[in-house]
Amino acid sequence: MNKITLLISCKDTEGIIASVTRFIYKKSGNIIYIDQHVDMEHGVFFMRLESQFSGTAGSFKDFKNEFGRQIAQEYGMSWEIHTEDPKPKMAIFVSRYDHCLYDLLGRYNSGELKVTIPFIISNHKDLEPVAASFGIPFYHIPVTASNKAEAEQEQLRLLREAKIDFIVLARYMQIVSGELISQYPHKIINIHHSFLPAFPGAKPYHSAFKRGVKIIGATSHYVTEELDAGPIIEQDITRVTHAHAIEDLVMKGRDLEKIVLARAVKLHISRKVMAHNNKTIVFS
Amino acid sequence: MNKITLLISCKDTEGIIASVTRFIYKKSGNIIYIDQHVDMEHGVFFMRLESQFSGTAGSFKDFKNEFGRQIAQEYGMSWEIHTEDPKPKMAIFVSRYDHCLYDLLGRYNSGELKVTIPFIISNHKDLEPVAASFGIPFYHIPVTASNKAEAEQEQLRLLREAKIDFIVLARYMQIVSGELISQYPHKIINIHHSFLPAFPGAKPYHSAFKRGVKIIGATSHYVTEELDAGPIIEQDITRVTHAHAIEDLVMKGRDLEKIVLARAVKLHISRKVMAHNNKTIVFS
Amino acid sequence: MNKITLLISCKDTEGIIASVTRFIYKKSGNIIYIDQHVDMEHGVFFMRLESQFSGTAGSFKDFKNEFGRQIAQEYGMSWEIHTEDPKPKMAIFVSRYDHCLYDLLGRYNSGELKVTIPFIISNHKDLEPVAASFGIPFYHIPVTASNKAEAEQEQLRLLREAKIDFIVLARYMQIVSGELISQYPHKIINIHHSFLPAFPGAKPYHSAFKRGVKIIGATSHYVTEELDAGPIIEQDITRVTHAHAIEDLVMKGRDLEKIVLARAVKLHISRKVMAHNNKTIVFS
Amino acid sequence: MNKITLLISCKDTEGIIASVTRFIYKKSGNIIYIDQHVDMEHGVFFMRLESQFSGTAGSFKDFKNEFGRQIAQEYGMSWEIHTEDPKPKMAIFVSRYDHCLYDLLGRYNSGELKVTIPFIISNHKDLEPVAASFGIPFYHIPVTASNKAEAEQEQLRLLREAKIDFIVLARYMQIVSGELISQYPHKIINIHHSFLPAFPGAKPYHSAFKRGVKIIGATSHYVTEELDAGPIIEQDITRVTHAHAIEDLVMKGRDLEKIVLARAVKLHISRKVMAHNNKTIVFS
Repeated sequence: MNKITLLISCKDTEGIIASVTRFIYKKSGNIIYIDQHVDMEHGVFFMRLESQFSGTAGSFKDFKNEFGRQIAQEYGMSWEIHTEDPKPKMAIFVSRYDHCLYDLLGRYNSGELKVTIPFIISNHKDLEPVAASFGIPFYHIPVTASNKAEAEQEQLRLLREAKIDFIVLARYMQIVSGELISQYPHKIINIHHSFLPAFPGAKPYHSAFKRGVKIIGATSHYVTEELDAGPIIEQDITRVTHAHAIEDLVMKGRDLEKIVLARAVKLHISRKVMAHNNKTIVFS
Repeated sequence: MNKITLLISCKDTEGIIASVTRFIYKKSGNIIYIDQHVDMEHGVFFMRLESQFSGTAGSFKDFKNEFGRQIAQEYGMSWEIHTEDPKPKMAIFVSRYDHCLYDLLGRYNSGELKVTIPFIISNHKDLEPVAASFGIPFYHIPVTASNKAEAEQEQLRLLREAKIDFIVLARYMQIVSGELISQYPHKIINIHHSFLPAFPGAKPYHSAFKRGVKIIGATSHYVTEELDAGPIIEQDITRVTHAHAIEDLVMKGRDLEKIVLARAVKLHISRKVMAHNNKTIVFS
Repeated sequence: MNKITLLISCKDTEGIIASVTRFIYKKSGNIIYIDQHVDMEHGVFFMRLESQFSGTAGSFKDFKNEFGRQIAQEYGMSWEIHTEDPKPKMAIFVSRYDHCLYDLLGRYNSGELKVTIPFIISNHKDLEPVAASFGIPFYHIPVTASNKAEAEQEQLRLLREAKIDFIVLARYMQIVSGELISQYPHKIINIHHSFLPAFPGAKPYHSAFKRGVKIIGATSHYVTEELDAGPIIEQDITRVTHAHAIEDLVMKGRDLEKIVLARAVKLHISRKVMAHNNKTIVFS
Repeated sequence: MNKITLLISCKDTEGIIASVTRFIYKKSGNIIYIDQHVDMEHGVFFMRLESQFSGTAGSFKDFKNEFGRQIAQEYGMSWEIHTEDPKPKMAIFVSRYDHCLYDLLGRYNSGELKVTIPFIISNHKDLEPVAASFGIPFYHIPVTASNKAEAEQEQLRLLREAKIDFIVLARYMQIVSGELISQYPHKIINIHHSFLPAFPGAKPYHSAFKRGVKIIGATSHYVTEELDAGPIIEQDITRVTHAHAIEDLVMKGRDLEKIVLARAVKLHISRKVMAHNNKTIVFS
């Protein structure tokens, strides 16, 4: 056990930080990051903590057991604890647009994304060569009105078999089903090509053009049952003018989409996002 | 006649720029700014041009007459021509918030806003001392459910008597009536405290907080009959996090509101905004 | 004792957070904010913590004494502890530009800046009416080559008598002396009208224009002996183009300057800035 | 001849726009874009104009000849005229970093960059597979202290033979020689990983970290003899905090670098950049 990341949420009360940090200290841990947030409205406490341990620290399993018994139970915590190994397993879903895929794979290749990518799934064959050039398995699962249910069962089977931890919809142009969502709660990251809640649904650049906005945006969020209404992880914007045609918005938007999605994916990988009440706490 | 600013719109066709610039040249004008835009969807041409004239140029009146007869008529133009004098007359409407008012008056004081400000109207007395400290007349016209119509007649009378050119709603917390809007079409500038079209109407910071957005915005637009749906002149945004309470959004929003409103007012004063089809062309 | 803000720095070692939070807990404190930073290069630990106390908590004086003896001494801490009362005393120095002054006083007036402002000092009389309109004493202390030393003694006397906590140079166009700086270490906040370290010294907008940059900036920093080289608190930027003349840069820069300075002042007031090794830690 | 883009610079005088637009009109051209700039300091006029022509327009060769004789000569213009075919030929120079290369090739692949890429040159072999995956020839030309002159002759030969129009240094970690620069004046685009003129030269992220800036930037510029001092085409920035280590700056910087370089390359390809007096005019 070298380094752990601990995520906690529970009813807000006095002494939580003292108890947790004392526990870590007694285990010879050196806290290198601590941040907390209190949702005043609902009286909920959230904390993220990173700690390093010297070689003499006990096993990770013992640590978890003791933390559960001595601390988590006392405060009624929901909690997660992560080590750096193994790396999380990330599946990517794409359709035909390649900009987000190239961007993610480029970052993966350079070591920026600390994940493994067991496969890419697409409802089209177009991006198979991109996957191949990065040496990543590619599954073509066409989705039509008539085969939607089977296609999804096939997706679920692949996800299950590879023990996928989370899914990135890198401009995947299909609405994912409730079953998939319920099996990966706050574990499916989508990129929507507008500044939500403005312009949800289809063709946001067309709507932005029509409304004459001076700024367009992109939003990365966890997928929930309601379309484009899940907890927002990250957003960014860029300026446009009357001189930009819809195609210009689409082109400028691509740069936003890939950057915003990458930021959200990196936050998720580093366990910096906690979802609660359809909002996120994003620790810095 | 030293300098003119010419705004034109008409059906797009060949030769417009050549005709207009040749006319200016023959009048010994030196074009120091020209920009144009074609709305491809509707086939409409827009142009903004600034020209300087040497001392020997004829009168402004003759220039206008000839331009109307020789050029504007041929192309069926809608057009406006402005000199630098007299400065436009700007009325400010406020309620209780002072940040936009201080910002506008500070700019006016420093010579940044090339206008005269005949008066400030408010439905509350709170900001009278601010008006007084800048030496600007202040009219307190309370607005209630029962006196709304008379209050507006009083506003209209003041606007008419002072020959007001345009109105700035500097966080004026009342909905202005259709009559006022129809008398000042694309001449009433509002600041809305959200990134429209997200969160129109009341309490946008509350809605932004509830939705958990990571960016908040402000939007300055011309007022039209439909609430918060008029042509957008300028927008800007700032980042927020889960740690910001509603009051923090309000405070951060104030900085956005005053800057965005000031930019929109300056664009309007320098005749850089043309409204068309509920959108704006904002020349740079 | 209702609420305290505690700032700590010391050699990094295990157990600091546990010790401090346990101390707070035993004093019946509820920690509502904790953030820390470790300067890995130099092995220094920094922490900022806010805690609320119930009515039964002991006196602030006892708390301080015990913290000093039981905790601070053990870890060899440099530390500060602040309550919300009394508010810090802020002096403003200005010359002739009024935009930063109006902005600061507007925020002060609206309750956004939790300070008292005992006086404004200027080497010119121009802004006396602005001070008067906000009801703040104004001292005109002219500075010339021959009277520089006496002028500064006069400034120091006023600062001392009013027990000023920190000084804001709101576009004060004079270089302050080493004596003043040494008496207010990391307590004099300046706004420099460039994106430091680009364009230090005089006339940065002229230099930016000459270099043809596409973005201009403003930088707020603590004043140190070396000109425009102190620890940076906050920076921001805005885009410019070839079409902007120097006067346009100056005008656009004004909006940057006032916003950036206000942000830095607010960070300082809320004790969110720690300076170290000519850099700042700015807690969020 | 379907569409032309015309770039002009000459001494500022009256009538230029009228003469040029009239010439276009007589050739049955429909101007779809016109923008101009006057460098007031030096009295120089710049114009960029796009015009479409109907099928009955004469040959491009005749157009050029007549424009040269009838217009350009009269005003003593420097001028360029471009059609959309053939596409410009762009060479890319890289070393070991792949993020800018992936980004450029992804855009090229998707049709966003309207160029041909005859080859990629590198002083290292690392990125050969990337070039291969996009089907672009890759020349490995090692550069050492002893072979620098020959290496450059080899580069020049390849550039000449392929009739390269412009060169993109996509994080090419070598200083290019005066000979190369003089043969491609304002035709070599570099990306520098700082907000110039801050932190020119080597290791800007290290310098930014040391100075404690709150914003880092990237700058794309034309290469001139003086290192990192050529005309700036585009810049952008991102915020950083005390919590970012040098490696974080490097990682955040990568996103800036690729976006800023891509924007500069696109501006150059669409002939929107004119260089003059070591600055650029960048038409919108």
